[in-house]
Amino acid sequence: MKIQRITILALGLIGGSLAKALKTRGFDGEIVAWGRREASLAKGLELGLIDRYSLDLTEAIAGADVIVVATPTLIAADMIKQLAPLVNDQVIITDVASVKGNLLTAAKQAFGKVPANLVLGHPIAGSEKSGVEAAKADLYVNHRVILTPTDETNPRALQAIKAMWELTGAEVVEMPVAEHDEVLAATSHLPHVLAYTLVDALAGSPEQQNIFRFAAGGFRDFTRIASSDPTMWKDIALANSDAILKTIDLFSAQLSILRSAIETKDSENIMASFTRAKSARDKFALMLEKQSKDASE
Amino acid sequence: MKIQRITILALGLIGGSLAKALKTRGFDGEIVAWGRREASLAKGLELGLIDRYSLDLTEAIAGADVIVVATPTLIAADMIKQLAPLVNDQVIITDVASVKGNLLTAAKQAFGKVPANLVLGHPIAGSEKSGVEAAKADLYVNHRVILTPTDETNPRALQAIKAMWELTGAEVVEMPVAEHDEVLAATSHLPHVLAYTLVDALAGSPEQQNIFRFAAGGFRDFTRIASSDPTMWKDIALANSDAILKTIDLFSAQLSILRSAIETKDSENIMASFTRAKSARDKFALMLEKQSKDASE
Repeated sequence: MKIQRITILALGLIGGSLAKALKTRGFDGEIVAWGRREASLAKGLELGLIDRYSLDLTEAIAGADVIVVATPTLIAADMIKQLAPLVNDQVIITDVASVKGNLLTAAKQAFGKVPANLVLGHPIAGSEKSGVEAAKADLYVNHRVILTPTDETNPRALQAIKAMWELTGAEVVEMPVAEHDEVLAATSHLPHVLAYTLVDALAGSPEQQNIFRFAAGGFRDFTRIASSDPTMWKDIALANSDAILKTIDLFSAQLSILRSAIETKDSENIMASFTRAKSARDKFALMLEKQSKDASE
Repeated sequence: MKIQRITILALGLIGGSLAKALKTRGFDGEIVAWGRREASLAKGLELGLIDRYSLDLTEAIAGADVIVVATPTLIAADMIKQLAPLVNDQVIITDVASVKGNLLTAAKQAFGKVPANLVLGHPIAGSEKSGVEAAKADLYVNHRVILTPTDETNPRALQAIKAMWELTGAEVVEMPVAEHDEVLAATSHLPHVLAYTLVDALAGSPEQQNIFRFAAGGFRDFTRIASSDPTMWKDIALANSDAILKTIDLFSAQLSILRSAIETKDSENIMASFTRAKSARDKFALMLEKQSKDASE
C-alpha cells in the first residue's frame, strides 16, 4: 500500500516534526495540513514542511490515503467523531495522542464499530518547546512509537503506518490498547500526578516560603514535570482516568506499607524497599543511557 | 573566639570538603581528622586537606576548639554520646547531618542537658560522588548552611561556627531545630520516600519489563533520587520519622483529593491543582536558577 497523500490534522511540534521528518527522509508524496489557526499552517508551508493547507476539514482530507490526528489528547476524540461521516473505509486514520482507550471508544461510537483502517499510535517523543516553529526532522530518530492494533485492524493499514514511522527513524513496537494505557499511566501519567500533588501540597502549606527556599537539586529534578502544561495533563488525567486510578492505588498501597515501616522504626523493611528501588532505578538508568547512546550514533 | 584547632570526625566528601575549603580560603589553624578507616585519613593528609590524623578519638580531639561531627546521620548521635565524657564545656561541637532533632535528643541524654557550646548545623550541599577523594574546595560556595541554635546556645559558639562556614563561602541561616527538620522532610526526605516508593511499586508489578522499557526522560528525572544510597536514606527516615510521617500524611491527603477529582472527572479541580503546582514550581525554578547564577559568578 503506497501512501501518496498524508493529511495532518493540527500542525504543532508533533505533527510538524512528522511532516519535516517525512520530507527530509525521502517521502515523495504530498503532505497536506489542516488546523484552526492559519498562522501555524502558513508557517509550516513557509518552512517547507507541507505542500499545502486548508482551514476546511473536508477539503484538507480529500484524496488522502492517511489522516494523522495530531491535535491535543482531549480534542483527538472529537476529531475522530468529526471524521467519521467524512471518510470512506479505504482511508487509514492514525493519531499521536498519549492515551489510546478513549479514542478507541470514540471511534466505536462514531463508526458503529472499530474501523479496520484505524491504527492508533503514540510516538514517545517530545520537547520542552511547542509549536510548528519547534518542529525537528530528527525528533523521532531512535525513539519508540507504540502502535496499538486491535483484532479488527487491517494488516495492510498497520503496515503502512509502521512504514511511515520507520521512515522518520523511529522504532515501532506494537501492544494492545489497554496495555499501552497501563504502561503509560505507570511511567508517565502517575509521575506527573505525584509531582503536581507534591508541589501543590507544599505550596499550600503555611511554611511555603521557607520550604522552597531550602529546596535543592534533588527537589528540582523530582518536580521538573510539575512545570508541564496543566491543560494537556488535565486532559490526559481525564482521558486515561481508569488506568491512572489503578496506578494511584498501587502507589498508595506501597506508600502506606512504607509509612508503617517508618512509624514502627522497621529498619529492615525500609532498607529492603529502598534497596529494591535503587537496584531497579540503576538498571533503568543504564538502559536509558544505552538507548540515548544508540540514538546519538 | 578565635579557632586554632578543628577536629573533623570522619573524612568523607562533606568533612573533606570543609577541610579543603578552610585550607584554601585562609584558615590558619590546625585541622585534625579522626576516622575508622585509616586509608581515608591518610588520603586526606596526602591531599593536604588536614595537618594530621589519629585513629584514637581522645588523641584526635585533644586541644580542639571545635569538633565537627561529619559521620553519616545515624552514627552522628552515637558520636555525640561518645564525645560527652571526653570533652570539657569549652569545646564547641557542631555537625553536618541532615536531621537535627535526634541529635539534640542524643545530646540532652548524653550531657544531661543541651550543652551551651553545641551548635547543630546542616550544609545543604552534596555531590553524586562520595569519599575524601571527591572533596571540593568550593562545595559550599553560595550554598546554604542551616544552623539550629537553641535558647541554651552560647552566642559566641554560634558566632564561631557561623564564621567557620562563612569562610568556606557558604551563606549561613538560622532556624529552630523543629523547623529545620520539617522543611527538610518536605523538600528532601519526602521526595526521596516518594521516588523510592514509586520505583519499588513498579519494580514489583508483573509488567515491570515493559514498564521500564517505555519510560522516558520525565520518569528519569522524577526517579533520579531513587538511585541514592539506601543506607543513608534509611537512616534519615528513622532519624526524622516524626516530621516525615507528617509530610507523608499531608501528601496523601492531597493525593486523595486529586484521586477523587479524577474519579469524578472533576475537570475544574484537576486543572486548578495542576495550575497552582505549575505556578509554584516555575517560581521555584526561577529562584534556583538565580541562585546557581549567583554561585557561578
